[in-house]
Amino acid sequence: MSATAISPTNLALIKYWGKRDTNLNLPINSSISITLDSRELHTITTAMFAPEGETEDKLWVNNKPVPLSTVPRTVRVLQLMRQLAQGNNATTQRAIYIVSKNSFPTAAGLASSASGYSAMVTALAGLFDLKTSKEDLSRIARQGSGSASRSLMGGVVMWNMGTRQDGLDSQAELVPFARQVELEAIICVVSEKKKKVSSTAGMQTSVKESPLLAHRAKDIVPVRINAMKQAFAAGNVESVLELTMRDSNQFHACCLDTFPPIFYMTDTSKEIVNLVTELNRESVRYAYTFDAGPNAVVFCEPQHTQTLLDALLVAFPPPATGEETFAYVRGRTELTATQALQRNTAKRAKVEQEQEGELCYIFHTGMDKLGARVLQGAEEQERQLAVPT
Amino acid sequence: MSATAISPTNLALIKYWGKRDTNLNLPINSSISITLDSRELHTITTAMFAPEGETEDKLWVNNKPVPLSTVPRTVRVLQLMRQLAQGNNATTQRAIYIVSKNSFPTAAGLASSASGYSAMVTALAGLFDLKTSKEDLSRIARQGSGSASRSLMGGVVMWNMGTRQDGLDSQAELVPFARQVELEAIICVVSEKKKKVSSTAGMQTSVKESPLLAHRAKDIVPVRINAMKQAFAAGNVESVLELTMRDSNQFHACCLDTFPPIFYMTDTSKEIVNLVTELNRESVRYAYTFDAGPNAVVFCEPQHTQTLLDALLVAFPPPATGEETFAYVRGRTELTATQALQRNTAKRAKVEQEQEGELCYIFHTGMDKLGARVLQGAEEQERQLAVPT
Repeated sequence: MSATAISPTNLALIKYWGKRDTNLNLPINSSISITLDSRELHTITTAMFAPEGETEDKLWVNNKPVPLSTVPRTVRVLQLMRQLAQGNNATTQRAIYIVSKNSFPTAAGLASSASGYSAMVTALAGLFDLKTSKEDLSRIARQGSGSASRSLMGGVVMWNMGTRQDGLDSQAELVPFARQVELEAIICVVSEKKKKVSSTAGMQTSVKESPLLAHRAKDIVPVRINAMKQAFAAGNVESVLELTMRDSNQFHACCLDTFPPIFYMTDTSKEIVNLVTELNRESVRYAYTFDAGPNAVVFCEPQHTQTLLDALLVAFPPPATGEETFAYVRGRTELTATQALQRNTAKRAKVEQEQEGELCYIFHTGMDKLGARVLQGAEEQERQLAVPT
Repeated sequence: MSATAISPTNLALIKYWGKRDTNLNLPINSSISITLDSRELHTITTAMFAPEGETEDKLWVNNKPVPLSTVPRTVRVLQLMRQLAQGNNATTQRAIYIVSKNSFPTAAGLASSASGYSAMVTALAGLFDLKTSKEDLSRIARQGSGSASRSLMGGVVMWNMGTRQDGLDSQAELVPFARQVELEAIICVVSEKKKKVSSTAGMQTSVKESPLLAHRAKDIVPVRINAMKQAFAAGNVESVLELTMRDSNQFHACCLDTFPPIFYMTDTSKEIVNLVTELNRESVRYAYTFDAGPNAVVFCEPQHTQTLLDALLVAFPPPATGEETFAYVRGRTELTATQALQRNTAKRAKVEQEQEGELCYIFHTGMDKLGARVLQGAEEQERQLAVPT
């Protein structure tokens, strides 16, 4: 008896930063994200009943056992899923094993918690054979990690902050978008030496110490959420992109307004901002966005992706690793370091070479239309995970 | 017939960013600054009547002629000073020559406009033999450069934003401070490759594009101005320092919230922030503040300056220029590159050497108690400037 689920990750265009309830993971403002294609970036999780006689729940992530005592939020999500199943008369008394694996390296700076908790609740819903809606599952995933609530659905997703103290209205909902809206994402993985401030700690320092964040959450984000929904509904990509950049800037502004200040963007991050600003000089075709780290994600429509990649390869030549076959561009476009260098030889001759190695690599992906789902049939057979030995 | 004035520069603790009237230089919020010691950093300006027969006003800055057609604000200030003199029945019809010189290198990132316009109005008041108050002169200097209004007075100075449309109440006033308050300043001149966004252009983009700046000016700064005045009056240096850091952070947050965003702080700036945050772990003894550039100014009481210098010399070894006698620490403390390296050999062995050369040099100065003044007697003889040949 097991079920295997796959979940995409997501990237917020209108940012989540700050909780009004740290226990229930209730945010101080709503947020809107794009779900990223699970073909390239995903967590796969298999949930199974433990063998007869075993009484303890267990967890493995990326082939390593993780003691449940170290991950209280995982314990909580498992408990909430059991409660839900009991209400649906499912078998829940047996111990459960959860085996989980991320397709993306942690170095990518993409929060594995978003896809992780989304995959976990989906796999458990499959194991218990529940017909629970994604909205309802999102409230449970939210208690694992706030942004996980947005990974259950594909396309464009709003995490509605809700107003209730018990969080029962703080859940994900689909944001309708015009049929022609199609976005790709270029993830620029920035080389970094220093340890970062965790987003969980950082956001609560901001809530306490940044007067600008309070104003943002109360007076600015509600207006932006509506503007973003309207832009998606109308298929106004330019407006989607501009709002995305403005909101990323404002999130980092609030980090800087924190005391002591939190810096996530580095000089390299700023060079990417300047590069995108330059590409947008005539019309807004690209949007950068930064989460709690220096990595940029740049969104654009598919017909503009190659121009962006070319500009990035000119500005940020691959690091000199000594390996010519090193994969510098990954995902939907694949280029080795050698190929990346060859692609823009002519243009690069004109620019200074100072930025060599500032990016570790570049990842090309796009939107996911499905969200988290339980795998069936052949796909399940192929991808289900066994307990590591 | 000539008069020579000296003016200090100043550094804002509560920042000025944004004008409500760009023509009159009326700000969107009041600001508070510390006047920096004119013994180390100053502009000296000699104003003189041109020789008989000359009909054209002329200007020289740092030994170079500056066509008045290129500096409309200087023309305006000269005109306003003539109007003031006419109201006082002074001789004003003759052409005027203004010769000005800054003691600090432009690379220091210290706005020479603050001391420059302050010295200019003071020298012209001397030339016209006016008994005009510093408050009244500050309104004229303000129209040259907003921050110049604060350089006329010594100690701690508030530029009151005023409420009148004609700007007649937008002027400097002294902020009283407890006798024991004494601060020194360590200016960290950060090596920089890129051209910066001018503060004049940058602040008006922020006024137009940053929703956080509007909130800051209207709701946050007034509270901080009062808190800062109270802290100075009470001699609460710790509070002065903390407010200074919070306000610098918030100013740069508003720059980042601008679209496209304005970045003045670099990775090196952030390292200085982190160093000061670390030094302040037990109690707040130091405050960083950054203007429209990457240079840090760190304030502290005199008994804590050497600890700060030591920490800076460990973290930021001098650049390898090949000249051992290169002045790496200047002003009240003077150290060559060699001496700077020797001073912390033991400690530096423990840290990584990555930050070598990130600072061009370090300048040690302090508070100025006098503000701008006309030089008299022997001092005038010694320092007056002649028209460069």
